[in-house]
Amino acid sequence: MVNRLGALDAAFLYVEESTLPMHVGSVMIFQPPAEGFDYDRFVAVVGDRIAGHARYRQRIRPVPARLDNPVWVDDVHFDLTYHVRRSALPAPGSGIELEDFVARIMARPLDRDRPLWEAYFVEGMADGTFAIITKVHQAMVDGIHAVDLAHLIIDPEAVPVDQRAGEPNPEPSHLRLVADAVLGSVINPARVIQGVRAGLGDVGETGRRAVETTGRVVSTLARVGAKPAPSSPLNAPVGAARRYVMVETDLDDYRQVRSRLTRGRYVDDVTINDVILATVTGALRCWMQTRGLPVTGASKVRAMVPVSIVNGTGDQLTDAAMTACFIDLPIGENTPSMRLHQISFAMRQQIESASAEGVDAGSLASIGGFAPPTLHSLGARLGSAMSRRLSNLVITNVPGPQQALYVEGSRLCETYPVMPLGREQGLAIGLTSYDGKVYFGLNGDRETLADLGLLAQCIEDALAELRTTPGSGRSY
Amino acid sequence: MVNRLGALDAAFLYVEESTLPMHVGSVMIFQPPAEGFDYDRFVAVVGDRIAGHARYRQRIRPVPARLDNPVWVDDVHFDLTYHVRRSALPAPGSGIELEDFVARIMARPLDRDRPLWEAYFVEGMADGTFAIITKVHQAMVDGIHAVDLAHLIIDPEAVPVDQRAGEPNPEPSHLRLVADAVLGSVINPARVIQGVRAGLGDVGETGRRAVETTGRVVSTLARVGAKPAPSSPLNAPVGAARRYVMVETDLDDYRQVRSRLTRGRYVDDVTINDVILATVTGALRCWMQTRGLPVTGASKVRAMVPVSIVNGTGDQLTDAAMTACFIDLPIGENTPSMRLHQISFAMRQQIESASAEGVDAGSLASIGGFAPPTLHSLGARLGSAMSRRLSNLVITNVPGPQQALYVEGSRLCETYPVMPLGREQGLAIGLTSYDGKVYFGLNGDRETLADLGLLAQCIEDALAELRTTPGSGRSY
Repeated sequence: MVNRLGALDAAFLYVEESTLPMHVGSVMIFQPPAEGFDYDRFVAVVGDRIAGHARYRQRIRPVPARLDNPVWVDDVHFDLTYHVRRSALPAPGSGIELEDFVARIMARPLDRDRPLWEAYFVEGMADGTFAIITKVHQAMVDGIHAVDLAHLIIDPEAVPVDQRAGEPNPEPSHLRLVADAVLGSVINPARVIQGVRAGLGDVGETGRRAVETTGRVVSTLARVGAKPAPSSPLNAPVGAARRYVMVETDLDDYRQVRSRLTRGRYVDDVTINDVILATVTGALRCWMQTRGLPVTGASKVRAMVPVSIVNGTGDQLTDAAMTACFIDLPIGENTPSMRLHQISFAMRQQIESASAEGVDAGSLASIGGFAPPTLHSLGARLGSAMSRRLSNLVITNVPGPQQALYVEGSRLCETYPVMPLGREQGLAIGLTSYDGKVYFGLNGDRETLADLGLLAQCIEDALAELRTTPGSGRSY
Repeated sequence: MVNRLGALDAAFLYVEESTLPMHVGSVMIFQPPAEGFDYDRFVAVVGDRIAGHARYRQRIRPVPARLDNPVWVDDVHFDLTYHVRRSALPAPGSGIELEDFVARIMARPLDRDRPLWEAYFVEGMADGTFAIITKVHQAMVDGIHAVDLAHLIIDPEAVPVDQRAGEPNPEPSHLRLVADAVLGSVINPARVIQGVRAGLGDVGETGRRAVETTGRVVSTLARVGAKPAPSSPLNAPVGAARRYVMVETDLDDYRQVRSRLTRGRYVDDVTINDVILATVTGALRCWMQTRGLPVTGASKVRAMVPVSIVNGTGDQLTDAAMTACFIDLPIGENTPSMRLHQISFAMRQQIESASAEGVDAGSLASIGGFAPPTLHSLGARLGSAMSRRLSNLVITNVPGPQQALYVEGSRLCETYPVMPLGREQGLAIGLTSYDGKVYFGLNGDRETLADLGLLAQCIEDALAELRTTPGSGRSY
């Protein structure tokens, strides 16, 4: 039986450009066990963990003349040591050298003639730690047929995919309906593909046209009113080179901000996710002011925030588990607590309209294994499928487990996502909370975000500002 | 005044594919001085050395709808630390780790939106040495407007290009005439470009058609009879990944072979270049036999060998200084000395028909500065311009200076070229002699030349075989 790519997966391939590679990354830092850990052992671990996951040994084979979507075929020349690579940092092997290395690795598209992933084993880190960097194409990780590589590596009890094979596919999400409307039988597929290739834009844009054509209304797009995002210095043509900066913060700081600023009857309405978004808002405000750009009371930055909409203990991490919230971050508001409450109010509205049962963004934390990388991948898929014109940037925040995890005896110390940039979106922010910390991965275009390090500093400052701002449970 | 790309330079851009990047590389290993040498100092050196060479700060700007060749424009956002990069090898930092690193670096195309070069400062080498790796696009190094980056870095007395600006351009070579015939006014340029893009093949192929059209006969192509090269395991579709292997041999070994095997009246007819080609021939024979492939008496591998045709002390390193020799390497011949004499005879014939005054391939060694990188670049340009179907592989051998050279107090210990692969050419061999050694850089497709390390061993074995074969000055 032919194993054909879904419409959405195929679309990710068609719209990919040399300056906008559509892969998701992760940066993980490990403390090796006393007996050590090396590249050969890592190759063996990866080989074991991908054994039950066919996508990691399959490549894309296009159909001649693009008469149909490409198919997945086994890579008969599969070459594990091509995919799993050994590298090292220059001295002193600090965060700066690691960030430079990540920026270079992530800027490069994956080889379309091979399985669409790479993993780097990085030596030469300060303090004897080592890093693992993964790159996985968005066309691969749909949650049903493949989970993210970092998810596979970290969790020793990962459910092998073949145990799930017999389960029915989940109900299609809005996203999948849009995608099917785009590239399915509703309209001439060749014409759509031509449109996509001619630069009509991203998948969401094409989807919107298709939807208009057929008269359907998609609730996700309706929610935001389908009006373009405000103009922003974040949005400029994106080149091939990147900058990458990692920021580590304490989860307790966000908890304290929440408990201090949300006394009274609103205490349950504000989530940790809201506090994190308020921190990013304060950071963007500070960054723009430092750049000397005008910030007025009405200034906004619209963020697309993928949110999980399945509850509790389910383990179906698929596209259907995610929905897009569009939040106008109030960077013009000068009171930190007001920023938080405006964000909290907007998020609640969005989530309630997206889901019959309101769920909070932390609801997936109880899923077995180290799910954040797969959730980041699903978030990136959603971000790429939505029209870029509807938001200024994508922020994915995925709660992770709060106890230490290991891979073959090596303790996972830090974990940072690397979210892909979109067309004319010079910045993407990914966050993962893990073992008491919140880890920001800032991915930026090398030119547009030449001062990405400044933005990182602004994140720390904005969190400190929230922590010291006067408490007010009645601020709205 | 618009600074437009020449027809040949533009052709290099048009025919470039993602699996066949058209840049030339070099790998240089240095012993730092007692006071040390670091990345910051290297950045300063490169910044100084490229200051007088506009191409290194210019990018390509295509003309809309390709109505004319692209133009060179100054990169107003020129970003030196993007181009000059700091890297490190994993432990133990031996040749193997360096080779893996070079293979990965060279597999990646240069960013078309920036000046077309990169340089890597590589730390973590065994014995405290450091490596510098350069990548320069073939469209840049035409000898008149730009010399190779490695050439600039090594020679402290490099003649600044502005001193040459007033000199007349050299007489156009056959190569340039072909290129002009292809992309000039002889036939519709748009049609040719369309043909090139439709996969007609490489520049030479297009050139041949153009030449046929206009009834001109180009002597280079006439010499080889324009018949396709024999089939060979070296020729298969090339993927995006590479292998790279370095081999160091003693120049004295080749000298001894020459003096031992060429007694009598033929002593002046055999060059060191011939002995090197005979070594490669023996290595290819041994490699094919080890692979279990049939080698019969009539088996040949046709090499395209760029040879310099200017004499003595001139310093005009341009396309016009190079011509292509097509040599059938007699891998079926089982007597090493016979292989040498057949090659020597064929080379002499080719050079004499190419040049009114027979010159030997060593004639450029006396040029000031470290010219080999630029000569390799010119050789690569010639190799790419010639039809790939006319040869099985390209071998460039450039004689370098026989005394130690330095950059800012760091001694150049070893220097290896990295020659680009051609369409369906899985192997390219570059050689540089320097300070008593001959350095082979073997660049291979990762799949087709999966056993490239074996070929490296065969080179050493073939040289040993030539050294121990019975001497015979009268073998033909």
